[in-house]
Amino acid sequence: MSTTERKLEHIDIVVNENVQSRESTLLEYVRLIHNPLPEHDLNHIDLSKDFCGYTLSAPLVITGITGGHPDAEKINDAISKIVNKFNIAMGVGSQRAAIENSNLTHSFSIVRENAPNAFLIANIGVAQLNKGYGIKEFVKAIEMIKANAIAIHINPGQEAYQDEGDTDFSNLISKIEEINDQLNVPIIIKEVGNGLNKGIVRELRSIGIKCFDTAGLGGTNWIKTESIRSRKKHGFALKEPGKLADFWGNPTALSIIETRISAIDSYIIGSGGIRDGLDAAKAISLGADVAGMAFPILKILKIEGEKGIENYIKNVIYQIKTSIFLSGGENVYSLWKTPLTIWGRLKDELLMRGIEPNEYLNKRLYTKLWRMKDYVL
Amino acid sequence: MSTTERKLEHIDIVVNENVQSRESTLLEYVRLIHNPLPEHDLNHIDLSKDFCGYTLSAPLVITGITGGHPDAEKINDAISKIVNKFNIAMGVGSQRAAIENSNLTHSFSIVRENAPNAFLIANIGVAQLNKGYGIKEFVKAIEMIKANAIAIHINPGQEAYQDEGDTDFSNLISKIEEINDQLNVPIIIKEVGNGLNKGIVRELRSIGIKCFDTAGLGGTNWIKTESIRSRKKHGFALKEPGKLADFWGNPTALSIIETRISAIDSYIIGSGGIRDGLDAAKAISLGADVAGMAFPILKILKIEGEKGIENYIKNVIYQIKTSIFLSGGENVYSLWKTPLTIWGRLKDELLMRGIEPNEYLNKRLYTKLWRMKDYVL
Amino acid sequence: MSTTERKLEHIDIVVNENVQSRESTLLEYVRLIHNPLPEHDLNHIDLSKDFCGYTLSAPLVITGITGGHPDAEKINDAISKIVNKFNIAMGVGSQRAAIENSNLTHSFSIVRENAPNAFLIANIGVAQLNKGYGIKEFVKAIEMIKANAIAIHINPGQEAYQDEGDTDFSNLISKIEEINDQLNVPIIIKEVGNGLNKGIVRELRSIGIKCFDTAGLGGTNWIKTESIRSRKKHGFALKEPGKLADFWGNPTALSIIETRISAIDSYIIGSGGIRDGLDAAKAISLGADVAGMAFPILKILKIEGEKGIENYIKNVIYQIKTSIFLSGGENVYSLWKTPLTIWGRLKDELLMRGIEPNEYLNKRLYTKLWRMKDYVL
Amino acid sequence: MSTTERKLEHIDIVVNENVQSRESTLLEYVRLIHNPLPEHDLNHIDLSKDFCGYTLSAPLVITGITGGHPDAEKINDAISKIVNKFNIAMGVGSQRAAIENSNLTHSFSIVRENAPNAFLIANIGVAQLNKGYGIKEFVKAIEMIKANAIAIHINPGQEAYQDEGDTDFSNLISKIEEINDQLNVPIIIKEVGNGLNKGIVRELRSIGIKCFDTAGLGGTNWIKTESIRSRKKHGFALKEPGKLADFWGNPTALSIIETRISAIDSYIIGSGGIRDGLDAAKAISLGADVAGMAFPILKILKIEGEKGIENYIKNVIYQIKTSIFLSGGENVYSLWKTPLTIWGRLKDELLMRGIEPNEYLNKRLYTKLWRMKDYVL
Ligand SMILES: Cc1cc2nc3c(=O)[nH]c(=O)nc-3n(C[C@H](O)[C@H](O)[C@H](O)COP(=O)(O)O)c2cc1C
Ligand SMILES: Cc1cc2nc3c(=O)[nH]c(=O)nc-3n(C[C@H](O)[C@H](O)[C@H](O)COP(=O)(O)O)c2cc1C
Ligand SMILES: Cc1cc2nc3c(=O)[nH]c(=O)nc-3n(C[C@H](O)[C@H](O)[C@H](O)COP(=O)(O)O)c2cc1C
Ligand SMILES: Cc1cc2nc3c(=O)[nH]c(=O)nc-3n(C[C@H](O)[C@H](O)[C@H](O)COP(=O)(O)O)c2cc1C
Repeated sequence: MSTTERKLEHIDIVVNENVQSRESTLLEYVRLIHNPLPEHDLNHIDLSKDFCGYTLSAPLVITGITGGHPDAEKINDAISKIVNKFNIAMGVGSQRAAIENSNLTHSFSIVRENAPNAFLIANIGVAQLNKGYGIKEFVKAIEMIKANAIAIHINPGQEAYQDEGDTDFSNLISKIEEINDQLNVPIIIKEVGNGLNKGIVRELRSIGIKCFDTAGLGGTNWIKTESIRSRKKHGFALKEPGKLADFWGNPTALSIIETRISAIDSYIIGSGGIRDGLDAAKAISLGADVAGMAFPILKILKIEGEKGIENYIKNVIYQIKTSIFLSGGENVYSLWKTPLTIWGRLKDELLMRGIEPNEYLNKRLYTKLWRMKDYVL
Repeated sequence: MSTTERKLEHIDIVVNENVQSRESTLLEYVRLIHNPLPEHDLNHIDLSKDFCGYTLSAPLVITGITGGHPDAEKINDAISKIVNKFNIAMGVGSQRAAIENSNLTHSFSIVRENAPNAFLIANIGVAQLNKGYGIKEFVKAIEMIKANAIAIHINPGQEAYQDEGDTDFSNLISKIEEINDQLNVPIIIKEVGNGLNKGIVRELRSIGIKCFDTAGLGGTNWIKTESIRSRKKHGFALKEPGKLADFWGNPTALSIIETRISAIDSYIIGSGGIRDGLDAAKAISLGADVAGMAFPILKILKIEGEKGIENYIKNVIYQIKTSIFLSGGENVYSLWKTPLTIWGRLKDELLMRGIEPNEYLNKRLYTKLWRMKDYVL
Repeated sequence: MSTTERKLEHIDIVVNENVQSRESTLLEYVRLIHNPLPEHDLNHIDLSKDFCGYTLSAPLVITGITGGHPDAEKINDAISKIVNKFNIAMGVGSQRAAIENSNLTHSFSIVRENAPNAFLIANIGVAQLNKGYGIKEFVKAIEMIKANAIAIHINPGQEAYQDEGDTDFSNLISKIEEINDQLNVPIIIKEVGNGLNKGIVRELRSIGIKCFDTAGLGGTNWIKTESIRSRKKHGFALKEPGKLADFWGNPTALSIIETRISAIDSYIIGSGGIRDGLDAAKAISLGADVAGMAFPILKILKIEGEKGIENYIKNVIYQIKTSIFLSGGENVYSLWKTPLTIWGRLKDELLMRGIEPNEYLNKRLYTKLWRMKDYVL
Repeated sequence: MSTTERKLEHIDIVVNENVQSRESTLLEYVRLIHNPLPEHDLNHIDLSKDFCGYTLSAPLVITGITGGHPDAEKINDAISKIVNKFNIAMGVGSQRAAIENSNLTHSFSIVRENAPNAFLIANIGVAQLNKGYGIKEFVKAIEMIKANAIAIHINPGQEAYQDEGDTDFSNLISKIEEINDQLNVPIIIKEVGNGLNKGIVRELRSIGIKCFDTAGLGGTNWIKTESIRSRKKHGFALKEPGKLADFWGNPTALSIIETRISAIDSYIIGSGGIRDGLDAAKAISLGADVAGMAFPILKILKIEGEKGIENYIKNVIYQIKTSIFLSGGENVYSLWKTPLTIWGRLKDELLMRGIEPNEYLNKRLYTKLWRMKDYVL
C-alpha cells in the first residue's frame, strides 16, 4: 500500500472512530488562579508570541496533519487559509510521498501560496533517516513549502503497531545531529501522541536541538489508530496492542514540564489533547511557548467546513486571551508568571520524576533569561 | 438591549437552565468533628453574629440578585420580607438601571420599606468606575435603599463572556480606594462566582477595604450563564467559553481561606455554591464570618413562593445551629475554634498556595484579636 | 406520642427505607496484610475475647436495638436466643419506657431468661439525666435484665432532628461521673451512628469511664431516620437536615482510632456500619476490642427470621476467624499486632487529627500492658 | 467428592461465572516512561530471559491450571503445544489426583510429550505436607512430567472457603525446608490469588527457597470461586466470605515489590491479574523476572480454541517487546532499569509498608549483582 493511501485511511479513522486516548492529559490536575481584579483592559491583552525567531499573532500551532493527495490538498488548502487569517503557525503532514513523487508536491505547497507570510513547518518522519534520507530530502521538504522550520516526527509507538511500520530506531540521534548542523531552519523534534520525556530532551538539546513539540498522551492516539486500521483490513489487528493503546505514554502535562526542565531555553509546542483555550493556557503556563492541536481542526473541518475551523480558532484564541486576562496577565509571557496549583496524581508523578512542583514553577521564567544569553555573552 | 432586560434574561436562564458549575466548592473535602457530648443546650446556641458593626440574628446573607423592573420588584419584595423576619442580611442586585432611570427606584427601595432595620447591601458593578461612575452614583445607590454597606461586584469572567460585556478593568483599584475614602458605609468587594484570591485581597486590604464576599467557584456560574444567553440569542455563543465555563475560578473553600489569610481582621461573606446549613457552617469554620447564598433563594421562590423561602431559611438556620451544637460550640465564633479535617485535593491545593492546613486553622481566631486592635491601640 | 410508638416507627423506617449513611465508615481505606503461610490450624484459632471482665466466645456485640412493646419483645426474644447460642454480647434498646411503665418490663427481661449467662448491656439515653433520672433508674434498668454493663447512649444528632427531641445536653459529664461512682457494673458510653472523638473520650476516661461503643458514621443514620419519620408524619420534615443527614459525624475507622488513642486501657466496641467479618476484623485491628452491629441483625430478622440471624452470625464469626487466620494470627489479640495499610482520605484525616498512622499502629498493643497495671501496681 | 471432580467444577465456574476480584492489581497506579527515541531496532529487542537456570524465549509463564481427567488432559495438551512453540514456561495444576491414582498420570505427562524442551513446573498443594506427603510424592510429581521445578501452592484463603478445605497450616515451613533440602529441582512457592508478602518471603528465603510466584490479588479469586461453587451445590455458601471474597489479599503490584525486597536474589514470577503485555511489563519492571497468567489462557481456550491461545500469546509477547522498545530498553533486564512512576493508593500503601518507591526502584538491579555472588565468592 502506498504512503498516500495509508494517510487517507488515517484521516478516515481518526475522524470516524474514537481514537482519542482514554488516559487523560493530566491537565485536569492543574488550576490557574483566578484574579478578580485584573487591572487590565481585556482588549489590550497582547497575544503575540515570539516563536523560533518569528512573531505569531497568537500562541497557536495547527500541527502536522496531511498532504500528498488531492483530498489532502483540500484539507491543507482550508487550514492554511485560516492560518493566514490569524497569523498562527501551521505544520504539514509527512512530506515523504511528495519527496518521492513530485506530482504530489502541490498538495503541500498550496499552504505557502495561501499563507505567504505564515510560520510553516515542514515534516519528515525520523524513521526515514534509517532508510536513506539525508540533507537533500530535508532541503527538498523545506523548499517545497518555503518552511520556517522542519519537524522531525518521532513515533515509535505508531510504527510498532502499524501493519507496515518501520521499527528500526537505532542511531537516529547522531543522524539528527548531522542534519541539524547543515540546515538553516530550525528542527522541531515532535512526538505524535505519546509524549517527550526529560531524558531524551536533554540529549537532543545537547546536540543542538532547540525546538520541541511534546505531543503527549491524552489526545489522538496512534497506537489505537493503527490497530483499528489493521482490524478493519484483516478482521483483527495483526499486532493487538492491549492496554498500550490507551495507556502508553507521557501525559501532556508531564511531558511539557519535562521538556522545559531539560531544555530551559528551547521553544516548546505544548500539544497532545489540547481541545480549547483553557487547555492551551494551562499548557503554556506549565512551560510551553505555544499550544498545538491537530484532531479538533480536522474533525471540525469535516463536519462544519472552513467556516467551522475559523470560528473554532477564533474561540480558542479568545479563551486564551481571557485566561491571561482573568489570571491577571498582560501577554502570553504572563502565563509563565501566573500562580497555579497542581494536585493528586500529577503532583505524585512529578515528585517521582524528581520535580518539586513549586520549585519548578519558580523556574519557568528563567527561560527568557536563558534565551537572552546569546545576545549577552 | 437595556440593562433591565438583560437582568430579566439572567433570572430566566439561572432558574430554568443548569448554570451551576460542574467544578465543586471543594467543601466536600472538609469535615467538622462531631462532638457527641456537647455540654450545651441546643436551644441556647447563640446564632447572632456581628457583621460590619451590625448584629445579625444568624450568620446569613442573601447576596445580591436583582432589581430594576416590576418583575424584579416582586422578587425583592418577597426576599426582603423574609430577611426582615429573620433579621439576616440582604444585598440587592446591581442598581445601575435605577441610578440611570429613577422610574426603577422603587424595585430597589421596597427592600428598605419591608425591612426597616435589616442589614441591607447596595450594589454597583466595578466596571462602571471606568465608565464615569463616581462618589455621586455610589451615594445615590446607598441612599436608594438606606444601605448599611455597598457591594462593588467584580466580575471579569462574566463581562468577558457577556455579549455586551465591559472588559476594561484597568486602574480600578485606585478608583475603589478613592470612593472608599469618601463613603461612610463600608464597601464590600464581591466576586460573583469565580472567587477572590489571596493576592487581590491583600492589595484591597492595604487600601482600606475591610469587607469581602468570596463568591467562589462551585455554585452559580456567570461565564456559563452568559454563554447560554448568547446561544439562545444567536443560535451559538458569540464567545464560546469552552471549559472555562465550568472550571475557571477559585473554588469556594480555597477562596474563603485565602481571603481570611490576606485580611485577617476583615469581615468575610463566604459564598458561592452554599446550599444548606452544613455548607454554611463549613464556610464559617474555614474563616468566613457569615455565609451567603443567591441561587437557591431565587429558585425556591420561583417554585414554592415566599413561604418556600421562609421554610428554607428556617431550615438552613437550624442546620447552622445544629452544626455548632454538634461540634460542641456555643455561638457562631465557636466555629472558628472547632477542629476540622481537610484532605485530598483541597489539602494539596492549599499546600501549593503556601498554606499549611493545620497552621491556618490555628490562626483563625486571631481574627477577633486583630479586630480588637482598634480599641486597644 | 409515646416512647414506645416512636420506637416501633424507628424499626419500621430503618428496615423499610434506606437510612444508611452515604458517607462511608472509611474502612475501605484499610487493608490487613494477607499471610499466605499462617503456620496455624484454622480450627485452633481462638476467638474468645475478654470484655469488661467477662469472656465472650467471639468478639461480637449485637448493640442496642429495642424493647418496650410486644413487637419489640419478639425481636429481643429472637436475638437473645442467638446470643445465648454463640455466647456473644447483646445490648437492649433504651429501657426508658419500661422504667416508667412496669407493664413493659418483660419485653426486656426476656433477654436474660433466654440468655442466662450472656454478657447483656442495659441502655438509657443520656438526655434523661437532665430530666430527673438518677441512680435509681439506672439500677432499675440494670436489674431488669440483670445486666453486666449499662450503655448510656449519647445521640445529640438524633435528638436535634427528632420532632420531639430532647436537646439539652448541658452538664451531662458530671452527672455521668456521679452515676458511675455509684454503680457496680461498668458504664459503656455509646454513640448511635455519628461517632465518638478523641477529645470527648479523653474527658470521659478522666472521670473514670472505661468502656466505649464508637458507633461511628457509615452505618445506620439517625439524623436521616428521624427526618424521614418526620416527613412521613407531616408531609415534610419539621427540621430538614440537608447534607447533615448523610455527612455529619466521625466515620467509624477514625472514631475507633481516636477512642483508643484517648483511652488506651479501655474496652472498646468498634461499631457503626460493620456489615461482615472483614469489617469487624478491620475495626478490631484498628484498636477496638470487639465489633458491634445493629442494623443487619434487625434487617435479616425481618426477612429471614431467627434462622437467618443465626446463619448470618455464624458467617460473620467465621469471617473474623479467617481474617485472623489469613493474617497469620492465633487469637483476637493477634489483630492488634497484624500489620495493615491505611491510605488516601483516611491517612490524610488521621494526620490532620495529629495521628501518624504507623506510629499509632505500633501503640495498639500497649493496651494490654496498660490494662495489666491494675494488677502490677 | 473426588479431587478430580472438584477440579472440573473449578474450571467450569472460573470460565462461566465472574470470579475475577473487584479489587485491582494496583498496576493501574504504575506508569512506565515512554522514550520516543529508543535508539534501538524493535526487531533486535531480546526477549530471552534466564529463569532458574534455564533460558526462556520470552519472560512468560502459564501458571498451573489443571490435570487429572480426560477433559483436563485436553487443556494441558493444547497449552503445552503452544508453550513448546514459544519456548515459554508452563505449570501444571495440582498433581495430587495422579499421585494417588496412576490412571490419571497421562493427563499430566502429555505436557512433557508435547513440550520436550520446555521449562515445566510440577505442582503440589502445601496442605498435603500435613497429610502425609513427603519427598516420595514430590519426586513422583516431578518425574511425572520431568519437571524443571516444582511449585508448592499455598492457598489458605481457598482452603478456608472450600466446602471440603484442608485448613491445617501449622508447621509447614519446616516441612518445606526438609523437602527443599532433598530435591534437585528448585521449589517455587506460589500463592493462587491472594499474594505473597515481605514477611513470609523473608522467612522462606532464609530456609533456602529461591523461587516465588506472587499470584497477587486482582485476578482470579479462589475465595470467590469456592463460595460460588458451594452456593451452586447447596443453594447457599456453607461458608459465606462476605467482602473477603473480593478484597482480601495483597494486590499484585505490592506483592511483587514485597517479594523482591525480601528475596533480592530470587527468581520471581509476577502474577495475579496479568492480562496483557503491558501488565506483564509493569510486573517485571516492578521487580519480577517473568510474568505469569492462568485465567485468560483457559478462557480463550474455551472460546477460541488452541489457535486463540496461540494468537493471544503472540500478542502478549509482542506487547512486552514493544514495552521494552518504547521505554528505551534492549532486553528483559532493561525493564529493571527503566524509570517509572507510582502514585496515589499504591504509593501510600508502599510507604506504610516501609518502602520508599524511588529508593526501591534504585535497588531493582542489585538483583543481578546478588545472583552473581555464587560465582564470585
Ligand atoms: C489525521 C492526522 C494525521 C497526522 N499526521 C501527522 C504527520 O504526518 N506527521 C506528524 O508529525 N504528525 C501527524 N499527526 C500528529 C499531530 O500533529 C499531533 O501531534 C497529534 O495528533 C496529537 O495532537 P492532537 O491530540 O491535538 O490531535 C497527525 C494527526 C492527525 C489527527
Ligand atoms: C439571578 C442572579 C442575579 C445576580 N445578580 C447579581 C448582581 O446584580 N450583583 C451581584 O453582585 N451579584 C449578583 N449575583 C451573584 C450572587 O450574588 C452570588 O454572588 C453568586 O450567584 C454565587 O452565589 P450562589 O452560588 O449562591 O448563587 C446574581 C446571582 C443570581 C443567581
Ligand atoms: C432500629 C434501631 C433501634 C436502635 N435503638 C437504639 C437504642 O434504643 N439505644 C441505643 O443505644 N442505640 C440504638 N440503636 C443504635 C445501634 O445500637 C447502633 O449504635 C447504630 O445503629 C449503629 O450501628 P449499625 O450501623 O450497625 O446499625 C438502634 C439501632 C437500630 C437499627
Ligand atoms: C481453573 C484454574 C485452576 C487452577 N488450579 C491451580 C492449581 O491446581 N494449582 C495452583 O498452584 N494454582 C492453580 N490455579 C491458580 C493459577 O495458577 C494462578 O496463580 C491464579 O489463577 C492467578 O492468576 P490469574 O489471575 O492470571 O488467573 C488455578 C487457576 C485457574 C484459573
